[in-house]
Amino acid sequence: METVSENRAFGGVQGVYSHASTETGTGMTFSVYVPPHEAGAKLPVLWYISGLTCTHANVTEKGEFRQACAEHGIIFVAPDTSPRGEDVPDSAEEYDFGKGAGFYVDATREPWRKNYRMRSYIENELPGLIAENFPADMARQSITGHSMGGHGALTIGLRNADRFKSISAFSPIVAPGQCPWGEKALGRYLGEAREAWREYDAVALIEDGARHDHILVDQGTADDFLKDELKTGLLALACKKAAIPAQIRMQEGYDHSYYFISSFMESHVRWHAERLG
Amino acid sequence: METVSENRAFGGVQGVYSHASTETGTGMTFSVYVPPHEAGAKLPVLWYISGLTCTHANVTEKGEFRQACAEHGIIFVAPDTSPRGEDVPDSAEEYDFGKGAGFYVDATREPWRKNYRMRSYIENELPGLIAENFPADMARQSITGHSMGGHGALTIGLRNADRFKSISAFSPIVAPGQCPWGEKALGRYLGEAREAWREYDAVALIEDGARHDHILVDQGTADDFLKDELKTGLLALACKKAAIPAQIRMQEGYDHSYYFISSFMESHVRWHAERLG
Repeated sequence: METVSENRAFGGVQGVYSHASTETGTGMTFSVYVPPHEAGAKLPVLWYISGLTCTHANVTEKGEFRQACAEHGIIFVAPDTSPRGEDVPDSAEEYDFGKGAGFYVDATREPWRKNYRMRSYIENELPGLIAENFPADMARQSITGHSMGGHGALTIGLRNADRFKSISAFSPIVAPGQCPWGEKALGRYLGEAREAWREYDAVALIEDGARHDHILVDQGTADDFLKDELKTGLLALACKKAAIPAQIRMQEGYDHSYYFISSFMESHVRWHAERLG
Repeated sequence: METVSENRAFGGVQGVYSHASTETGTGMTFSVYVPPHEAGAKLPVLWYISGLTCTHANVTEKGEFRQACAEHGIIFVAPDTSPRGEDVPDSAEEYDFGKGAGFYVDATREPWRKNYRMRSYIENELPGLIAENFPADMARQSITGHSMGGHGALTIGLRNADRFKSISAFSPIVAPGQCPWGEKALGRYLGEAREAWREYDAVALIEDGARHDHILVDQGTADDFLKDELKTGLLALACKKAAIPAQIRMQEGYDHSYYFISSFMESHVRWHAERLG
C-alpha cells in the first residue's frame, strides 16, 4: 500500500492510498479518514460506496463526514467505483457503463470478467488491507453509499448481514433489475439470464429472504432520477412485505447531488455510531 | 443576474449566479448560500474571499460552511478571485498572477487596469447586487477568506472597519509587500512605487492607523507557505504594537488545504455569528 496524500483534518488524518489489487488486476485508489483516537485504540469502520462517474475523491472532498466521524470516533473508508487503467475494457461513450460504473458485481461475461470484480474487491480484498494498515476494529463495521453506491451498500450489506451492524443509503438504486441503468449494466456484466442478477438487487435479495434490522434510506423528492432509476417505493414495499423495519425518509426538495448527501451525512454517521457501539 | 444553479442544502439554498460586471467589464460568477429563514426576514452576511487559483467553486464544494450558516442564520457569499474571459489579459504560465490571482486590488498599470478591479467589485458592485437580490441585512456584514483571500478579507475589512462587524482569515498572506507572491502581484498591478501598495497590505494598513477590535486568524503549522509567503508573525507583531486584540491561533499539523479550512470553518462562522448579533 502506498500513501498518495495525507492531510490533517478535524484532529485526525484524511488519507488517500493506492495498491495493486489482485481481484481487479489493476492499481486501485481509496481514501480513509482516521479520526483522533488514543494510541492503541481500535475504531469501528463505516464504508462509503460511491455512485456513477465518481471515484473515492467526490465524497472525500464534498461529503462533509469528517466532523461527525471525529466526534463519534469512526474510521471512514471510500473505495473507487470500478477498476481503472489503460488496459481495462471500457465503454467510453457511456457514463453509466464501464469505468466509473462497476455496479459492485463480479462480472461473468467477456470482456468484463477479468477486471470488473468490485464485489470481491470490496467484500474481501480491501477489508484485509484496512485491517492490516489502520486501527480498525473489523468486528464493528457499517456501510453506506450513494446512488449506484447506495445499491452497493444495500446489496453488500444484505448479503453480509452478520458483518455490518447497520446499512444506510442516499438516493440508492434499489432494484437494478427494474431500471434502465441496472438492466444495461447487469445485462452486460452478468449476461441476460436475470436469475443471476438477483444477488445484485436489494429488492430481489429481500424477496429471496435477506434480512437486516437496521436500514436507513434518505431520498430527495426533487431527484431527477427518482421515478425511472431509483424507485425508492419498490424498497419500501419489499421491506413492508418482509416485515423489515427500514427507515425510508423522503426529503422534500432535495436533489441527487452532494449538496443533498452532505446535508444528511451527519445524521447517517450518528445513526451508524449508535449501532456500532 | 442569472441563476447558474440552485440546490437545496441544509434546509436552505446553495446558489451559483452570474452577471455582467461594470467594474471588471466581464461576466462574473459567484455563489450565495441562503439558510432556512422566515418569510420577510433579513439575514446577516458573511463574505468569503478565495485564494490563488480558486473560483467561487472551491469553498462552495469543500468549505463545509452550510451546516453552521443554517444553524446561525447567516448568508454566505463567495465571489470569484479575478476577472475571467478570453479578452482579459493573463499570464498563463503563472498560477500566482493574472486570472485566478486578482489580489483584490484596483490595478493602475497596463494592461491590467481595465479589468483587474476586484477591490471595487467586491467592496462596491457585488454588495449592491446581493442587497437587491437576496434577503440580506447589509447593516450586519462580516468577512473571512483563505490565503490570498485571507489577505483580501483582512485588507477589505480593515479599510471598511465600520461596515464589517468582524474579520477572520485562514492562512492569510498578511503582508504582500514583504513576500514573493505579493511583490510580484502588487508590483505589476500597481507599479514599483511601494507607497501605493500599503492600502493592499494588512500589516501596512495597521502600521498606518487602521484598527479593528474583532480579528481572528487560524494558521496551520505544517503549511508549506507559512515561512516565505504568509508570515503570520508579522501580523501578530503589528497587532501587538497597535494594541489590537487579535486572536491568532497556530494550529498544530494543519496544512494549506481545504481539509484545514473545513476543520475550522464552523468555529469561524460561530465566532462571526456572535458578533453579527
